[in-house]
Amino acid sequence: MQQQISVITLGVSDLARSRRFYVEGFGWRPVFENAEIIFYQMNGFVLGTWLETALAADTERERLSRPGAFSLAHNAPSREDVQPTMNRLLQFGGHLLKSPVEPPHGGFSGYVCDPDEHAWEIAWNPFWAIDPQGHVTFGT
Amino acid sequence: MQQQISVITLGVSDLARSRRFYVEGFGWRPVFENAEIIFYQMNGFVLGTWLETALAADTERERLSRPGAFSLAHNAPSREDVQPTMNRLLQFGGHLLKSPVEPPHGGFSGYVCDPDEHAWEIAWNPFWAIDPQGHVTFGT
Repeated sequence: MQQQISVITLGVSDLARSRRFYVEGFGWRPVFENAEIIFYQMNGFVLGTWLETALAADTERERLSRPGAFSLAHNAPSREDVQPTMNRLLQFGGHLLKSPVEPPHGGFSGYVCDPDEHAWEIAWNPFWAIDPQGHVTFGT
Repeated sequence: MQQQISVITLGVSDLARSRRFYVEGFGWRPVFENAEIIFYQMNGFVLGTWLETALAADTERERLSRPGAFSLAHNAPSREDVQPTMNRLLQFGGHLLKSPVEPPHGGFSGYVCDPDEHAWEIAWNPFWAIDPQGHVTFGT
């Protein structure tokens, strides 16, 4: 099968609160929105924020838990961009999980969670290339 | 900020069991692997499967829960590819969440979870374009 993920969907309990984090915090622009879901066109795939009750029903699961065993990362263009990006996310409904540190393998990163407890790593990773369209390539 | 996600990291409890699902089930090729993490180069970003204990420690969270309030989707090239793809994932450690159905907005999709309970929607979505590199564009 093609090595491809088409959508990441995050369950949210309050769509307006989540929208504030992504639109005002990250500064991202929705490509579609209605009363239960917002889609953002990302770098080669789509991010969806969907009412958690609807996501649970669609997956035929009775219960979804938080915080889930996953994280997302956004790579900043420079080390100096990490803290200001985190500050902005905290200003628009995020919560601090971990202040940025320099990990053993290099770079600089910290964690914020969105208003629904979904973890976001904000990282500067000098080893991974990012093209102008935002496509990220693994590197060492 | 650039509308960009660099990494999706899934917490896993048994790396070999998870690898079987992704490498033999999906047929994906790792770009890097060691005793605690496997990376897959995806369509414009990187998928990581990381020991859940390490992910929890890195995010400074005491406890991660399952199933989390999120899902991932893989888009199949045709309606006829959905069921065989799901069958293959079930053969290599996945569990059925929902047999494929035709949702009201069109297409055809079902859900499987990976061995760590992470939900995967396997979908045929005729409205979203996929280029040869696997980059997916939102459409209606």
